Amino acid sequence: MNYTDFFRSELDALRDSGNYRNFAELERHCGAFPSATCHNGPGEVTIWCSNDYLGMGQHPLVLDAMHAALDRTGAGAGGTRNISGTTHDHVRLEAELADLHGKEAALLFTSGYVSNWAALGTLGARIPGLTILSDALNHASMIEGIRHSKAARVIWKHNDQADLEAKLACLPANAPKLIAFESVYSMDGDIAPIAEICDLADRYNAMTYLDEVHAVGLYGPRGGGVAEREGVMDRLTVIEGTLGKAFGVMGGYIAASTELCDFVRSFASGFIFTTALPPAVAAGAAASIRHLKASGAEREAQQARVAQVRARLDQIGLPHIDNPSHIIPVMVGDPVKCKFISDTLLRDYGIYIQPINYPTVPKWTERLRITPSPVHSDADVAQLVAALEKLWTQCQLARRPLAAQ
Amino acid sequence: MNYTDFFRSELDALRDSGNYRNFAELERHCGAFPSATCHNGPGEVTIWCSNDYLGMGQHPLVLDAMHAALDRTGAGAGGTRNISGTTHDHVRLEAELADLHGKEAALLFTSGYVSNWAALGTLGARIPGLTILSDALNHASMIEGIRHSKAARVIWKHNDQADLEAKLACLPANAPKLIAFESVYSMDGDIAPIAEICDLADRYNAMTYLDEVHAVGLYGPRGGGVAEREGVMDRLTVIEGTLGKAFGVMGGYIAASTELCDFVRSFASGFIFTTALPPAVAAGAAASIRHLKASGAEREAQQARVAQVRARLDQIGLPHIDNPSHIIPVMVGDPVKCKFISDTLLRDYGIYIQPINYPTVPKWTERLRITPSPVHSDADVAQLVAALEKLWTQCQLARRPLAAQ
Repeated sequence: MNYTDFFRSELDALRDSGNYRNFAELERHCGAFPSATCHNGPGEVTIWCSNDYLGMGQHPLVLDAMHAALDRTGAGAGGTRNISGTTHDHVRLEAELADLHGKEAALLFTSGYVSNWAALGTLGARIPGLTILSDALNHASMIEGIRHSKAARVIWKHNDQADLEAKLACLPANAPKLIAFESVYSMDGDIAPIAEICDLADRYNAMTYLDEVHAVGLYGPRGGGVAEREGVMDRLTVIEGTLGKAFGVMGGYIAASTELCDFVRSFASGFIFTTALPPAVAAGAAASIRHLKASGAEREAQQARVAQVRARLDQIGLPHIDNPSHIIPVMVGDPVKCKFISDTLLRDYGIYIQPINYPTVPKWTERLRITPSPVHSDADVAQLVAALEKLWTQCQLARRPLAAQ
Repeated sequence: MNYTDFFRSELDALRDSGNYRNFAELERHCGAFPSATCHNGPGEVTIWCSNDYLGMGQHPLVLDAMHAALDRTGAGAGGTRNISGTTHDHVRLEAELADLHGKEAALLFTSGYVSNWAALGTLGARIPGLTILSDALNHASMIEGIRHSKAARVIWKHNDQADLEAKLACLPANAPKLIAFESVYSMDGDIAPIAEICDLADRYNAMTYLDEVHAVGLYGPRGGGVAEREGVMDRLTVIEGTLGKAFGVMGGYIAASTELCDFVRSFASGFIFTTALPPAVAAGAAASIRHLKASGAEREAQQARVAQVRARLDQIGLPHIDNPSHIIPVMVGDPVKCKFISDTLLRDYGIYIQPINYPTVPKWTERLRITPSPVHSDADVAQLVAALEKLWTQCQLARRPLAAQ
């Protein structure tokens, strides 16, 4: 086999299908985010698709904590958590996370991806006879963790508690069960019926595993996520979250009972055999969490900005998914036009929104996933909506009937 | 099933077997490393088991680059590499890494663990009919990646090229093959016969995948690893490395052809669906690599310190594995005594060396894995050797016959 020829032909096939990804090379301007330089594009741009949902990646408290930790303790952790890599900053961050979710303990991972993969992988592999009931739209990291565990897997229809119940009822009453789902789903922005799923978990003696990566920092009085807002954190067995989106830094975690965290800590290959997060990353994340526990201003400003963008889109009839979250998927429904609009926004308007095409979303649901944040201005919104309106006309895309004025 | 009882009983079994891990909670003193405060131990300690092999985690050039990137661009990347998370700092670091290994391209991951898991997992899953020939002592991350790929797997005896050849000869000549191995093996410190393995790869038209995580920064005129020192970098298909050990920060990577990197970039779930490294982490790692390309002083000082510790251990007859690397495994050969020595070193001498017990190493090969570095002083070495000598006597452990004086 000629290996290079093989790689080349696979990449060509990807290009032919329109699914080859080009990365925009950005340099964010700290203090002026969402503004950035696009080094392989038109120069100055406004970012409208970041998961730094609240702009905490440039918050002075976060940066001060990171600068201070670098000066105090250096760059890297220098080892795995077991071999010299557990630092005071990791331990304090884990305490902060346990408190955020009202749990006894928390456990850090190098990323949200690894936290899902390692935690679900370990629970599934190590609990004899466990069946994992997984929402059909769960994130790739959860799917890979479940696959990796080789546990029995039952897929239930997305956010459909009747289907979940039917599937729970088919399993032996005494068999161990884990229901794995998300609160806010990233691509549609819809939200799971958490309390109802907890009711089912109680009825069928199942554990629950809730991925709140698109919700932590953003919902609930202290930013504990949708489960905090709905007063059900204590009903969940595991809450999984990220430090790389609303908290603005990097890393992932689970929060749960002392025993469950210790179990994953003791058996998860992806936790044990990897260098710990840099202490400065842990310190920055802890500062971000502490701030967002006390301050609701960022959350309120974000929600106001989201509502403003939705209202403007409605005024010009641009179709977007009406969901109860902060994610605005503007539906193009055509991969070529979706990429064209994204390219033109970048080149002619300095607006950066990565197109979301298959396989990340189903074919003919291609979209621009817009994430308004407190750091976008009125002028940014006006410019975005005007540009989208022009391109919608240019591409002859359908509009919604306008709401009665 | 009572889940908590299950976790508790599994943890009790781990404790009973002596394999329960307690993490030392450290706070390194930047500028004074290997000195640190042990918050759940005796206070001030000297670290002797860090993988920050050259002390680059406190190098002013690394810290300056990180401070500058924080001020310039903020804390986190804010997205996956595809959705707003590719920054100028990532692109520059990938160019630095490609240059380090003399390859066309490089691809960053959030950790060395993820780079092995994702790259081997993707190559194994996506190349039809691929057989992966894996050294028996490969790291957990490589094993998990190969398992994950579901590719055919053949284990060859550790560092045994005759066994590798026998296994290559059994496979169909036209079948695609990948030989996966490490240069420096972490726990024994032995080094693979890289050139001989490349000869076999040529003869049997196999790709080669070399993990150099314990070698990058440390070997070769520019810190390219053992393959650079031996002049064989161009013969390897993939060189995998870490930014979290000798380079002192965090993250992992592969360096390879443009096509191979693009292939993994385009298909690896663990690359695609995860938040990118913080730009400041990338900037710090790039500064570290740049410095170690130009400066051999740290490598020379480390090698001198390693030789000094070995010579002192020989003078008092303490058994250690004679290997050609910078890792000194001092063999205790008893899990209880190994932990006792480690605990006593910490409590009574302020010396921190994590004990290495089963399952990380085979039973009755329990050891203290010592990693001397340029930042250890003559006084540190004298204190370490004196403490070990006392404890060796106290534990009635065997000594080697002394070398003729």
